[in-house]
Amino acid sequence: MKLLRYGPAGQEKPGLLDSDGAIRDLSGVIPDLAGDALAPGALAKIAAIDPASLPKVTGNPRLGPPVTGMKNLVCIGLNYADHAAETGSPIPKEPIVFLKSLNALSGPNDDVVIPRNSVKTDYEVELAIIIGTRAKYVSEENALDHVAGYAVGNDVSEREWQAERGGAWDKGKGFDTFGPLGPWLVTKDEIPDPQNLAMFTDVDGVRQQDGSTRTMIFGVKQVIAYVSQCITLNPGDVIFTGTPPGVGLGKKPAPVFLKAGQVMKLGIAGLGEQQQKLVPSS
Amino acid sequence: MKLLRYGPAGQEKPGLLDSDGAIRDLSGVIPDLAGDALAPGALAKIAAIDPASLPKVTGNPRLGPPVTGMKNLVCIGLNYADHAAETGSPIPKEPIVFLKSLNALSGPNDDVVIPRNSVKTDYEVELAIIIGTRAKYVSEENALDHVAGYAVGNDVSEREWQAERGGAWDKGKGFDTFGPLGPWLVTKDEIPDPQNLAMFTDVDGVRQQDGSTRTMIFGVKQVIAYVSQCITLNPGDVIFTGTPPGVGLGKKPAPVFLKAGQVMKLGIAGLGEQQQKLVPSS
Repeated sequence: MKLLRYGPAGQEKPGLLDSDGAIRDLSGVIPDLAGDALAPGALAKIAAIDPASLPKVTGNPRLGPPVTGMKNLVCIGLNYADHAAETGSPIPKEPIVFLKSLNALSGPNDDVVIPRNSVKTDYEVELAIIIGTRAKYVSEENALDHVAGYAVGNDVSEREWQAERGGAWDKGKGFDTFGPLGPWLVTKDEIPDPQNLAMFTDVDGVRQQDGSTRTMIFGVKQVIAYVSQCITLNPGDVIFTGTPPGVGLGKKPAPVFLKAGQVMKLGIAGLGEQQQKLVPSS
Repeated sequence: MKLLRYGPAGQEKPGLLDSDGAIRDLSGVIPDLAGDALAPGALAKIAAIDPASLPKVTGNPRLGPPVTGMKNLVCIGLNYADHAAETGSPIPKEPIVFLKSLNALSGPNDDVVIPRNSVKTDYEVELAIIIGTRAKYVSEENALDHVAGYAVGNDVSEREWQAERGGAWDKGKGFDTFGPLGPWLVTKDEIPDPQNLAMFTDVDGVRQQDGSTRTMIFGVKQVIAYVSQCITLNPGDVIFTGTPPGVGLGKKPAPVFLKAGQVMKLGIAGLGEQQQKLVPSS
């Protein structure tokens, strides 16, 4: 099942994608894709509905992030061995965890704003885990029980603020629009093996990242279990699980960063594609 | 003006403290201490009300954090020269910024839960800035225009997760209950000089931290201006501005950490006092 939120920013309604690729309105069924609506029982009720019985949404509305109301956008850093290598970093011994400001969250096809005076804005295609039920001190064995589904995420990063200004990475990760998510939340039943998904990023039509979740250092189960030891995960919380090689920071002979006017396109097998135009800060 | 939120966790109502120290109910005036209710015009309307005309709250209700609905709990690290010294860290060249999970936020007198297997839980009394209006790319000159008021904060920290597990500090800062805030939001008109406030922490009645906001490296104006370059601040957002010397991590000849059953008491001149009992994780 592919669940989404459509409409102007801040006024999104919940919907689902039917088998013809049309949006069906879920606002008569659930108030939004948040909280209790992400629990297994609630998702089962939605799955039992004949999509044809739901109002068909006409036109081509904007998509918002496919989940809302969360308290945490957790990110895992350097979680692909080949990406750690390209940035010249050692393989982490345990997951690197940081938080992205909730300000960053945006729709999958919304513009990404290059911060004022920034010259090192970069993309990172990532498998995003969307939590369905509260997870605190969970084991790896039970970790997937707490997952509602998955989505494509772009962990947009400003490398100067992330790494050259002192302190934690959080400075370079939380700019407004730095967290496109979607196009949809794909429920976990459609993704039987989250550790074997092809993923890519194109910039202006040229492939930059071409990887697979196979090369993750700490897999989905491990990441959930680990994070749940220090940050309680609640329905709607999102974990960005790290990026494969090919980011601008890792380009040889020299890094290559994003410029206003360029277009990023990102996708993960089974989870759809997202596309953002880069625009200058006002 | 001292604004507060009272009642059971998750069901708090807004209130104010009258000149006799009694709580007056503000729920007929504003829906909560959040968002637009924190703007200068909204605060001026509350200030114009005769407290005696508001319902008096009887009994001794729990206090919640004095603000809600925020998207960011921003923290500044090592922001007191003498605290940086006691932890053996160099003086930062620019503010160290990290985020505390929103899960951490709790009432000023709520229990603080020592995480499972934790042996390095520590206190940090901090001046907390509460934002009243949106701040993005603001100058130091205009920074205070965006402040609604101030509160006492305890940036509770688990030092092993913060510093010995790899990556950002966020792991050690975002445990549930690790962000007591209050007892009240004191509007900025009552705090003409936020850089000259005595502050303390006692553990079981023994003074541990005894400092002043005078020794901050980056002051309130600088911190707001700096953070607003990378994380847009919105009404209700909180900035914890760092802690003076005396934390358990800095004790000589060896660090001393908190134990279940102990009681922390923290205060800042003009902002009131808070007190938390340490309890083990269930």
